[in-house]
Amino acid sequence: MAFHRLDENDMRALESIVSPERISAGESNLHLHSMDQTHHKGYLPEAVLWPGSTDEVSAILRLANQRRIPVTPWGAGTSLEGNCCPVAGGIVLDFQEMSRILAIRAEDFQVDVEPGVTYKDMNRTLARSGLFFPPDPGANATIGGMIANNASGIRTIKYGATRDNVLRLTAVLADGRIIRAGSRSPKSSSGYDLARLIIGSEGTLAVVTEATLRLRGIPEGFSAAVATFDSVRRAAEAVYGIMAYGLTPSALEILDDRALRYINREREDPLPEKTTLLIEFTGNNEAGLAEDLGRAREVCEENGCESFRQGVGRDERNRLWETRHRFGECFIRSHPGLDVLIMDAAVPLSRFPDLVERAVDIADEHGLESCVSAHAGDGNLHLNVAGDMSDPAFFHSLTRAYDEIVTFAVSLGGTATGEHGIGIGKRKFMQLEHGEGMEVMRGIKRHLDPNGILNPGKVLPEEVEGSGDIP
Amino acid sequence: MAFHRLDENDMRALESIVSPERISAGESNLHLHSMDQTHHKGYLPEAVLWPGSTDEVSAILRLANQRRIPVTPWGAGTSLEGNCCPVAGGIVLDFQEMSRILAIRAEDFQVDVEPGVTYKDMNRTLARSGLFFPPDPGANATIGGMIANNASGIRTIKYGATRDNVLRLTAVLADGRIIRAGSRSPKSSSGYDLARLIIGSEGTLAVVTEATLRLRGIPEGFSAAVATFDSVRRAAEAVYGIMAYGLTPSALEILDDRALRYINREREDPLPEKTTLLIEFTGNNEAGLAEDLGRAREVCEENGCESFRQGVGRDERNRLWETRHRFGECFIRSHPGLDVLIMDAAVPLSRFPDLVERAVDIADEHGLESCVSAHAGDGNLHLNVAGDMSDPAFFHSLTRAYDEIVTFAVSLGGTATGEHGIGIGKRKFMQLEHGEGMEVMRGIKRHLDPNGILNPGKVLPEEVEGSGDIP
Repeated sequence: MAFHRLDENDMRALESIVSPERISAGESNLHLHSMDQTHHKGYLPEAVLWPGSTDEVSAILRLANQRRIPVTPWGAGTSLEGNCCPVAGGIVLDFQEMSRILAIRAEDFQVDVEPGVTYKDMNRTLARSGLFFPPDPGANATIGGMIANNASGIRTIKYGATRDNVLRLTAVLADGRIIRAGSRSPKSSSGYDLARLIIGSEGTLAVVTEATLRLRGIPEGFSAAVATFDSVRRAAEAVYGIMAYGLTPSALEILDDRALRYINREREDPLPEKTTLLIEFTGNNEAGLAEDLGRAREVCEENGCESFRQGVGRDERNRLWETRHRFGECFIRSHPGLDVLIMDAAVPLSRFPDLVERAVDIADEHGLESCVSAHAGDGNLHLNVAGDMSDPAFFHSLTRAYDEIVTFAVSLGGTATGEHGIGIGKRKFMQLEHGEGMEVMRGIKRHLDPNGILNPGKVLPEEVEGSGDIP
Repeated sequence: MAFHRLDENDMRALESIVSPERISAGESNLHLHSMDQTHHKGYLPEAVLWPGSTDEVSAILRLANQRRIPVTPWGAGTSLEGNCCPVAGGIVLDFQEMSRILAIRAEDFQVDVEPGVTYKDMNRTLARSGLFFPPDPGANATIGGMIANNASGIRTIKYGATRDNVLRLTAVLADGRIIRAGSRSPKSSSGYDLARLIIGSEGTLAVVTEATLRLRGIPEGFSAAVATFDSVRRAAEAVYGIMAYGLTPSALEILDDRALRYINREREDPLPEKTTLLIEFTGNNEAGLAEDLGRAREVCEENGCESFRQGVGRDERNRLWETRHRFGECFIRSHPGLDVLIMDAAVPLSRFPDLVERAVDIADEHGLESCVSAHAGDGNLHLNVAGDMSDPAFFHSLTRAYDEIVTFAVSLGGTATGEHGIGIGKRKFMQLEHGEGMEVMRGIKRHLDPNGILNPGKVLPEEVEGSGDIP
């Protein structure tokens, strides 16, 4: 795609759409919108716009489409695969000014929001109504970003990913047309599912400007347990056993022995440096929660767990889960001055032990220090690696290791990304994972965005100036 | 679209793809594939083919696409909106010969099937492994038909619709290309969600030839209750209360007083002719099931229920639910010689009482005898009507009433169809419900099926010879 670089005429035209204080071509703003929380290098946009309404987004896109200016939507910049980096320059649309909660429809377990609201802010407000939006990606992402990447996290095992919890979208197409996709009705068999097509398309098919989300009641009761095992395989087998029993945990996470070592560096009372399975149940039924925990204990013991600590109630659960919540920061603090990469791949549950074992071996073979933090109940591995990305030797090892891990995951019937999206880094696996299906995706992209202005250089492996050869 | 009528050359070409005993142009076969379980009139195809493999389907579509021959996929013919009627003639692809269970992957809670297997047959086989596929449309549909229509039913409130329970598809495009969409991984953020785009597209975008379904463990425990109310509104408010409490029933169904009257015609010990709410919980936790039932009782009593009968265990649940299971047949037997229409629309939960009350009034205003059987927990109304479709006066009243009911549902933020699909009859509401989104759907259809050979005359309101003006 040959794009047009923003000129003075364009800037004047944009200023007739949004007020001057919501356009910037200042260096610091361009830098702030050049990269996400990623190992990919940054790319400067030419202007940042903060639209205030769907109509403004529509007018901006109509102009950008006519003049072949790239447009990259921007939420909180917390993505991990370069998903919101403006690789072809052009306009970044920052949704910070469109962050209102438009309506809490408690009677329908729904909320209408603008895309710029962060899920933590939204959930804080919703808590007053006893409701919450379950997908929880960890980072304080915006709802728009979560929709773009089909974000998920530790609660997905019970409540699904973002795609499963969005009922209805307002979205602007590349040519400025505004569509409403989906329905407020909790079920529908009416026409093609445009909402779910747009969710997870990383802003390459349309720009979401409003969403109706499906909410749940905040559970009253919590129970939790922490079990240790002498291998990742045994822990993963316990995960399978818990699911096979028909239990419905609200989280099932694995940290390996190496992850525990990082956590212990900051603890006065060290935890066992063993593979650790964290289990959580939620519900309104105290007796039921205790019974579920008892069953989970049986399964863990059958799979040779070495210890099993458990507790009922929110405080007990927070105490037991502290390890998991602190892991990310411990890992970063353990590697001062280094870059941290969270690898992401997912496989069918039965292949999860194979994936974890092989991924750790691959990292070792390439001389990478790694440890596992995994949404095990979803078959979703995260392998955490730290190093200096500007060191070509490290970068080369990292790239090769990640390629091997993803290729192995796909060979097990899995996916190149469980929750971080394709962005820049995973485009090279699209053909491997989707084959002919990728051409269908490309056709849909061409149909909806014939000039390729929407978030170019993402999802589909196309040659885009400046996108380079990045892992 | 101008279609080519099958000639001798075409038949010879088709005979080179499938063996002669799997092609028929015989009158009785054409008649058997002319209409579904519908109020729409039938349309004769020109040939019926029973393909045996994905490759055969691919070869058939390649030929049909070159020669502009319509192709309509066919499962069990149990659809209710003319979804599989070959309105433009051409080829019907009957999947009866592709009904194998290819692999039960109990360790992943997955099964690989061909589209011609019926869900009842499949679930009987899966039960030996303690597993089941939850969407339950009532009629013994094929999995292919359920995927085409995004079928759901009484278990959807707990487990979701078909779209939520399909992980991966093999599908053949109009030009014969074979794609695999989705992943065996339980979660993925990899590329555009082609699987969910195809699911619910009623065979108009691609023909599904294999599917990987997500399974659940069969619950060990059942509890159930039957509560009666003096109005549909009160029953619907109890439904809301149960959901708001955070309970997760596996079914929440409403039959109105009129439906009970039909049931009582065949009973020796008559039931109260009151609006009846049927509640079911499933789980592996006996104490939890009893506690849930206790909470449901409290909610029903707060909403003024007149009686509340409850039971724990599978037999008790079957006894209590007998009413619901027998309703459909009672209604048909009560109207010998007449046609039965099951109207379908869905709205957000809070608007469900409004929809039910208004729908019954509209039917009354048009002089139609009607009664309610609703998947109330999903906001999904079914209004059952009987009459003689060949009587123009009845047909006119029916059409006007259904138009008013659907228009009202959409005005409440609802959908023209909760679970029966658009088919022929609901195309006229696509513009009303989807607006500009319908043009996007049309564009996707044109891109994937430029010659319009796949199930013409369905979903999108296009002028197709012979499709007529059918409600």
